[in-house]
Amino acid sequence: MNEDRLLATYLVETPYSLNYAAEKIAGEQSTGTFVTVPGETHALKERHRAQIVKVTPLEDVTHPSLPGGKIPSHHDGVYHRGEVVIAFPVCNFGISLPNILATVAGNLFELQELTGIRLIDLEFPRGFSEGYKGPRYGVAGTRKLIGVYRRPIIGTIIKPSVGLTLEALQQLVYELATSGLDFIKDDELNANPPYAPLEKKVKAVMEAIHRAADKTGKKVMYAFNITGDIDQLRAHHDCVVSAGGNCVMVSINSIGLSGLSYLSRFSEVPIHGHRNQWGMYTRAPFLGMDFNVYQKLCRLAGADHLHVNGLNSKFYESNASVVHSIQSTLKPFLGGYETMPVISSGQWAGTVQETYSNIKSIDVMHLAGGGILAHPNGVAAGCESMKYAWEAATQGIELHHYAEKYPVLQAAIDHFSTK
Amino acid sequence: MNEDRLLATYLVETPYSLNYAAEKIAGEQSTGTFVTVPGETHALKERHRAQIVKVTPLEDVTHPSLPGGKIPSHHDGVYHRGEVVIAFPVCNFGISLPNILATVAGNLFELQELTGIRLIDLEFPRGFSEGYKGPRYGVAGTRKLIGVYRRPIIGTIIKPSVGLTLEALQQLVYELATSGLDFIKDDELNANPPYAPLEKKVKAVMEAIHRAADKTGKKVMYAFNITGDIDQLRAHHDCVVSAGGNCVMVSINSIGLSGLSYLSRFSEVPIHGHRNQWGMYTRAPFLGMDFNVYQKLCRLAGADHLHVNGLNSKFYESNASVVHSIQSTLKPFLGGYETMPVISSGQWAGTVQETYSNIKSIDVMHLAGGGILAHPNGVAAGCESMKYAWEAATQGIELHHYAEKYPVLQAAIDHFSTK
Repeated sequence: MNEDRLLATYLVETPYSLNYAAEKIAGEQSTGTFVTVPGETHALKERHRAQIVKVTPLEDVTHPSLPGGKIPSHHDGVYHRGEVVIAFPVCNFGISLPNILATVAGNLFELQELTGIRLIDLEFPRGFSEGYKGPRYGVAGTRKLIGVYRRPIIGTIIKPSVGLTLEALQQLVYELATSGLDFIKDDELNANPPYAPLEKKVKAVMEAIHRAADKTGKKVMYAFNITGDIDQLRAHHDCVVSAGGNCVMVSINSIGLSGLSYLSRFSEVPIHGHRNQWGMYTRAPFLGMDFNVYQKLCRLAGADHLHVNGLNSKFYESNASVVHSIQSTLKPFLGGYETMPVISSGQWAGTVQETYSNIKSIDVMHLAGGGILAHPNGVAAGCESMKYAWEAATQGIELHHYAEKYPVLQAAIDHFSTK
Repeated sequence: MNEDRLLATYLVETPYSLNYAAEKIAGEQSTGTFVTVPGETHALKERHRAQIVKVTPLEDVTHPSLPGGKIPSHHDGVYHRGEVVIAFPVCNFGISLPNILATVAGNLFELQELTGIRLIDLEFPRGFSEGYKGPRYGVAGTRKLIGVYRRPIIGTIIKPSVGLTLEALQQLVYELATSGLDFIKDDELNANPPYAPLEKKVKAVMEAIHRAADKTGKKVMYAFNITGDIDQLRAHHDCVVSAGGNCVMVSINSIGLSGLSYLSRFSEVPIHGHRNQWGMYTRAPFLGMDFNVYQKLCRLAGADHLHVNGLNSKFYESNASVVHSIQSTLKPFLGGYETMPVISSGQWAGTVQETYSNIKSIDVMHLAGGGILAHPNGVAAGCESMKYAWEAATQGIELHHYAEKYPVLQAAIDHFSTK
């Protein structure tokens, strides 16, 4: 029914009426200009003008969220908030992620009739699934590559983030890969630095991973951070794949959704999508966009894994918001696009129960840096403590109770619960 | 002296001390993790840890700018603001724009120790000029291609933004190209839509431009919006160049800085950089980044022209901020990177004098959509009115005075000054 329209939902705040603000958005982002020009005919407007679908008033406030608003001449001091749904004709931009961004985001955030404007949902017509195939591996493909089912993928991040020599890194990776972990990733701060260039890093890391696999019979998944200029993405990807690597990682906001989509068209391994810089787009409540929009864009562009923060993290975000991010990423979208949410930041065994009780899913990656590496009994114990915590959570057993049976879990609680 | 360090300056707001907040930033974005891990040795920290260069206190406030801040146990209700300069060792990321973003922006915006965090300057070591050559054409190259010197490039935008048939577009372009304009651009909403695919659009537009050039002896510059997926950028560029086109335009935030940098490595014509979506990064005063940072990133990545908004525009931005954007874009950077600022939005002859008196430069593009197309005496008169306004401004003649000599200028004043 909406096959020829893209629906965008905005949170709007304005000193004008909500309907006037909605008209401004629809005009600015389709056929309008600041004075009427000759070519803006009735027939053209019929076909191409964005339409207001719905305006839902919310509360009024007395202080504007953003600066620079133009105040109407007889302003009563009130700023109206509401949700506005706008329908954009797909024929204005076609099946093109870069060009829908210019339309649904575009100059909107700068309009002086608005003192708050946030993109909170996008509803894509089915045609987008033709143009953007999405993740090639997703949840099922990732599980198959690692050989882990019926529980989350447990992983860690190389720490310290930067500075490890290739020798130290190789030694650490071997230790991690023989400690029961499913997944290891580079830090987002570490991609292809002069002191440990990617090519040499891949060689050193894969040597450790293959050696560990010979010992354990299990090949861990390692997400190599291949973030770089577009020209480098293919070479870096090929370097990883030809060395037997089974995952590449990118900072999505560094290479752009376009860079992600480019990579996904040829990647032979899952793409681990890191969302660093995301706070810039979302932390001001009446500006930018919700993660609900971002996750759809990233899934269309082909992220197999997508970072979603974690409960009780070191970041500003509320647990409710994190739960919402995980749930929206797990929700089927255009009949597919199964991207695996990556839970990370300040995680350890003690954050599992609350996570599971909220999301009721095991189709996630659960990463702990310090929460595994700094376990008092070592890395293997840290990893075990995470697995036991998930066992307890999924079986509905209280964590402290389960810890009576598993000393590594008790040790994690003793060590981390005061941090 | 700073050849091995990248200096980032932040505006910070925190319920903690400024020094504590600065330490958090330096730690999070280099060697730190939430608990100390074994590999974080003294020697590693010496080489790789980011350093606080300077902390300059500003005012204190009693309300946090951003939500989600963690409040210290004995908080006095005060949030401290200040400027913090952090030095990041270049060896952590190398000469890589995508990877410096993960470092200088990264997870910073999400730190709960901060209630405000904005990147306001980046000082690049000289090495970046080796990795990123910047604009190939810039001010001088653009002037040479158009043959316009000693005044700004006067241009317009195709309006209505979307919906014109190829026939109507061709007719409009011919009219514009025979009306004395130097430059015409596609709207950012219009790139490669199904009803007027880029290939056909290029053919139709270039036919009009060549026909106009035969008549006038002057070939106007037309910026074709080639925004699209990475795979399409080269094909779209080649399509424009092989038809005799002399400029390509991209929505920088749609293709990413990486996409821009990719395009600039092969583009045979100037790249016209549109900044739509920019408001999302900058409108919250204590979040995101200043244009001062953005323009440097875009210049490094190769934007020959860069949109900077305009004075008295339809957007929220203050004139002082617009002037600052123009001045920072005109300021030499790493010994070059001459990008032409593009002044646009709500512009007409009447916005010239205030612009020139503030920026004291003619090395800009000055675009007017309605301000030229909707001139009561037609497009040629609209274009003339802009040129006369610049003559008046640069000669120090009052606009109304100059208008006595030039009726098209007076007509513009009569028509637009009440809008």
